[in-house]
Amino acid sequence: MSKILVIYASDYGSTEKAAQKIAEGARAVEGTEVEVKKALEVTPEDMSAADGIIAGSPTHMGSMHWELKKWIDEVCGGLWMKDALVGKVGAVFGTGGGYGNAGGGCELTMLSLLNNFAELGLILVPLPRNTPGYDKAGLQWGPYARAHTEQGQPVGVKEEQLESFMNHGANVARIAKVAQQHSFFPKP
Amino acid sequence: MSKILVIYASDYGSTEKAAQKIAEGARAVEGTEVEVKKALEVTPEDMSAADGIIAGSPTHMGSMHWELKKWIDEVCGGLWMKDALVGKVGAVFGTGGGYGNAGGGCELTMLSLLNNFAELGLILVPLPRNTPGYDKAGLQWGPYARAHTEQGQPVGVKEEQLESFMNHGANVARIAKVAQQHSFFPKP
Amino acid sequence: MSKILVIYASDYGSTEKAAQKIAEGARAVEGTEVEVKKALEVTPEDMSAADGIIAGSPTHMGSMHWELKKWIDEVCGGLWMKDALVGKVGAVFGTGGGYGNAGGGCELTMLSLLNNFAELGLILVPLPRNTPGYDKAGLQWGPYARAHTEQGQPVGVKEEQLESFMNHGANVARIAKVAQQHSFFPKP
Amino acid sequence: MSKILVIYASDYGSTEKAAQKIAEGARAVEGTEVEVKKALEVTPEDMSAADGIIAGSPTHMGSMHWELKKWIDEVCGGLWMKDALVGKVGAVFGTGGGYGNAGGGCELTMLSLLNNFAELGLILVPLPRNTPGYDKAGLQWGPYARAHTEQGQPVGVKEEQLESFMNHGANVARIAKVAQQHSFFPKP
Repeated sequence: MSKILVIYASDYGSTEKAAQKIAEGARAVEGTEVEVKKALEVTPEDMSAADGIIAGSPTHMGSMHWELKKWIDEVCGGLWMKDALVGKVGAVFGTGGGYGNAGGGCELTMLSLLNNFAELGLILVPLPRNTPGYDKAGLQWGPYARAHTEQGQPVGVKEEQLESFMNHGANVARIAKVAQQHSFFPKP
Repeated sequence: MSKILVIYASDYGSTEKAAQKIAEGARAVEGTEVEVKKALEVTPEDMSAADGIIAGSPTHMGSMHWELKKWIDEVCGGLWMKDALVGKVGAVFGTGGGYGNAGGGCELTMLSLLNNFAELGLILVPLPRNTPGYDKAGLQWGPYARAHTEQGQPVGVKEEQLESFMNHGANVARIAKVAQQHSFFPKP
Repeated sequence: MSKILVIYASDYGSTEKAAQKIAEGARAVEGTEVEVKKALEVTPEDMSAADGIIAGSPTHMGSMHWELKKWIDEVCGGLWMKDALVGKVGAVFGTGGGYGNAGGGCELTMLSLLNNFAELGLILVPLPRNTPGYDKAGLQWGPYARAHTEQGQPVGVKEEQLESFMNHGANVARIAKVAQQHSFFPKP
Repeated sequence: MSKILVIYASDYGSTEKAAQKIAEGARAVEGTEVEVKKALEVTPEDMSAADGIIAGSPTHMGSMHWELKKWIDEVCGGLWMKDALVGKVGAVFGTGGGYGNAGGGCELTMLSLLNNFAELGLILVPLPRNTPGYDKAGLQWGPYARAHTEQGQPVGVKEEQLESFMNHGANVARIAKVAQQHSFFPKP
């Protein structure tokens, strides 16, 4: 059995919806158990128990939701000091309103989430271009769904935008299942 | 008189078109002279003679066109060693094909161009959200125009996508004109 | 009279010390008033009243302290919606413990603070290489002081590491004083 | 048998030395064949034949050596269009002179190399903090060795700085060996 933990913060429900779709994709991989948690409720034990961790955020001024940042500072920092998660699998996803048509800062947002996972020693899973749904909600660092028009009007996330999220969840679950059986980074 | 230098590399003409529009905007600012050059043709003298420098690139795998990188390595590096451009004004712009709807890596592309300008000690000009045309081709780091559909089909840059570029050029020209008259970073 | 606002979050006092040094440098520029505030205490009015804003953070897993992120989400987001700060001047600084000798994630940390300022339409001030003190605490995006050894032992920030911070504060104050008298980004 | 390809560009030999040390670490993993190539000599066939690809660069003004950028534009772009490398393993490393003590732009340099690998659909291997040698040449995105003093004087890379590189090579080889036997990203 392998375990996937999906962590998120959400303003109006779009990122939550995206998190659930990631979970659905992961759950479809045989032998995978999935838990979805809001960032402020995640404990160090949740993270230690997981084989794969996927974190997602809305884009707030080009960086993650502060609740995720609090989780990183208060939960992840301590695990980093103990090298507790080295060799697990990590991935990210995002949503955004933005304004304009160029991602509105989602790339740096995802990278700062990935920075946390790199610090923790997690193997990072990108989103390949040939993933079904990539053209509607894809960025190389992970799936990204706009929940606003280019003029900033909120319209929510559409079902067709969530296909790449589902596939991302499954990709991570497949990799976590294998990684769990190996010691890729031998203990010093 | 103040001088703006626009530097670019282009694959199929979209970035060149964008560079010309930037130039048009800068030229409209009274007392401004503008030169547009391909990256491989820029000399250290061109840069030293400019008060404001604007560089733009297509997005290639999440980073700038190699011709711009060659310019940075072979022209900018030497100027950095001499602190020759400290206190001038810098800005960036981009185009992209991408695939998916999240900017396709344009944010890191622009940031690596900005990194060069930060190293050189240039004051950096972003693109404010209330710039006319932002909703059609705007990112906070500079204007960005898609030249492909979300499925990756080339369609070129449309006129309406270039409005934010023209305004960006004018913004930079206005700031360069003032910066030229001041010593913001006193010589050590 | 022009006004500089220095915003920070601090774990053990190093970033606070750095913020005070930035303030000292800004205050030394004639006609400049300076206020130093913890991120969680900053109001929209504080920001609207400032001509230049400088934000600094410790490096936490490659991104800013969550208190700064909360300030961005809850104070800056609303100001962005109103384009309230367009044309002001912004800059950043950092401290870090890290482990290893490569900055420990300070570059992305500073970039996510700068992303907020770019979104707000602030003109961005880098740290030129010829700034006195750069070799002891310099990065192109702003001054950065290590407060730990390369093995992660806390040693605090030394006086010699703060020279570049003082100069950074003065640079920003000089530019803010001039920017305040101009309309670089005309209202649409 | 699994195959690791190490790609680099080098100015004065430090990055080449680092590349050889990465190769040495990879070669020590049983059943692993290693090839080391200069960026300008890499062919699409070299990349398709590899199970794991590791790319390294000196830091030039906060971004990679232009020869690596040319390789990305002219070799990797075409492979991306064909989704030819999806599911392989990727990692990066860096060297730098810089000036100042904060990495001198190595983080964005490594991230732009990683951006290429994310676009190609490679699983990304970070450098865990507990890797032997991390304190002398470690960054979360990959090993990084300074080859200059903080005042910018070239001193070359020391043997003790290369320990983390050797371990990085071995980590990637171990993961590539396993990844090669799985279809983590099923073909659409």
